[in-house]
Amino acid sequence: VISGKDHISTEFRAIQDHICQELERIDGAGKFAEDLWQRTEGGGGRTRILSDGAIIEKGGVAFSEVYGPVSEVMKKQLGLNGEHFFATGVSIVLHAHHPRIPIIHMNIRYFELDSGAYWFGGGIDLTPHYVNESQAKAFHEKVKAVCDDFDVRCYRRFSDWAHEYFYNVHRNESRGVGGIFFDHLSESDNLSKSDILSFCLQLGRLFPVVYQEQVEKGRNLPLLEKEILWRNIRRGRYVEFNLVYDRGTKFGLLSGGRVESILMSLPNTAAWEYNFQPEKGSEEENTLALLNQRIDWLQ
Amino acid sequence: VISGKDHISTEFRAIQDHICQELERIDGAGKFAEDLWQRTEGGGGRTRILSDGAIIEKGGVAFSEVYGPVSEVMKKQLGLNGEHFFATGVSIVLHAHHPRIPIIHMNIRYFELDSGAYWFGGGIDLTPHYVNESQAKAFHEKVKAVCDDFDVRCYRRFSDWAHEYFYNVHRNESRGVGGIFFDHLSESDNLSKSDILSFCLQLGRLFPVVYQEQVEKGRNLPLLEKEILWRNIRRGRYVEFNLVYDRGTKFGLLSGGRVESILMSLPNTAAWEYNFQPEKGSEEENTLALLNQRIDWLQ
Repeated sequence: VISGKDHISTEFRAIQDHICQELERIDGAGKFAEDLWQRTEGGGGRTRILSDGAIIEKGGVAFSEVYGPVSEVMKKQLGLNGEHFFATGVSIVLHAHHPRIPIIHMNIRYFELDSGAYWFGGGIDLTPHYVNESQAKAFHEKVKAVCDDFDVRCYRRFSDWAHEYFYNVHRNESRGVGGIFFDHLSESDNLSKSDILSFCLQLGRLFPVVYQEQVEKGRNLPLLEKEILWRNIRRGRYVEFNLVYDRGTKFGLLSGGRVESILMSLPNTAAWEYNFQPEKGSEEENTLALLNQRIDWLQ
Repeated sequence: VISGKDHISTEFRAIQDHICQELERIDGAGKFAEDLWQRTEGGGGRTRILSDGAIIEKGGVAFSEVYGPVSEVMKKQLGLNGEHFFATGVSIVLHAHHPRIPIIHMNIRYFELDSGAYWFGGGIDLTPHYVNESQAKAFHEKVKAVCDDFDVRCYRRFSDWAHEYFYNVHRNESRGVGGIFFDHLSESDNLSKSDILSFCLQLGRLFPVVYQEQVEKGRNLPLLEKEILWRNIRRGRYVEFNLVYDRGTKFGLLSGGRVESILMSLPNTAAWEYNFQPEKGSEEENTLALLNQRIDWLQ
């Protein structure tokens, strides 16, 4: 069945293959290692990790397809209204060595319940250690182009959603420069299920293109030793977001997913220096100022 | 009023003073720096941090006394049944440089609602990077002695509670070698409010004694470079616990506490190496094996 769950899984697997191939090309040295895993209650996944490449310090591109009974804890904590579920998705987080290359994340996922309800979710967002306005703009432009092809109203809606979602509430701080986020997306008057699937796949194909652009802009900038501490502090904020707020992490941990695959999003190193305050007038201070406001990067 | 909230705050402040003094003596070089902070809705705190001492890499000893209206988010997410609350406590987390000196945590807290309900909570627990059975036993013996003075049945109950509480469910792994944990403790037939307060204060006075013992056992052991990565990985697990499960962290973030004071528990550096597997027969493997079971350290 076109856009049936097996078809969607197959397309998602192909996206994982494409992205890994492209990232190996962009990195130029690192290769992905694959771990296959099975989930006791049903399904499993294909986790691919690139460690210590030329560009990428730790990069995970994970495919999973899990299904089975909706447990009590899933009902209660995730509000799932059904007896059996099926979920498939591709999740990516890349941490580069260089502080001038942003952390990047992408996720596309499909979920269905035995009640017949189904939805897609996903997003792509950029978390620079140092916010560079032209890099942020370049990223949003390409994401908007894919959104516009799908539904001209959705970039506005999904980028607002990303701003709201990728947010460390306790710090009053955006995780990064945003991007798009969407959830519970299913067919409507003017969008079919296959339209939504095709939008998710387009995002998957966009991913290596935008990452390559970020890498090219950042890789040759000077790397100062003091920037490593700042990079690690920003990575610490990333850890805070993923462990405190992220839905995918929460779903994975509560649904009995493979812990190492779920937490592949965490960086090799992170830092929490007590009450670190950047110097007045520094780039670090400027980054914080930009993360403390709602910016429309395409204005 | 004896055991009224102002009396309890005053006693908790004195415990903070005592502990900081003792820790400076044990460290031998580091000094605490103090940050006073105020909470918009009522109250504030006195956060003291020792950074980069001879023994302690990052140590926080925080006192706080906060009060005000119970917000909607506190009602919903913390289940608080009242309109106004008062909370005071002392929280400590110490991260030493040396991988053979355990992370240690202590907390004593008092909470009351305008309905008249009140309770104490707290605990002390030890998180060695390398579990050493005789160090764990020495720790539990001293904690048990304080418990026995209070109520002979409570060590069993509170140490079971610690095992259940200080647990990374997603990893099926204890945070460390346990200790005691208790919550919602209020007066009963054989315990008065001042008995419970006095137990909390005894725990506070015990803290530097047990820490000194751990420091003396660990500080002169050889420090191998490869042990730093392992220490940082274990610190990563500590971050996971505090951000995913810890009630104090959750309460602090939801009740509008000062973020840097709440997250002072996080280490200067932490590591997440994908799917790190210790060598067969290594001490690291032995530590994991010991954390994967329920051990009664006093048997």
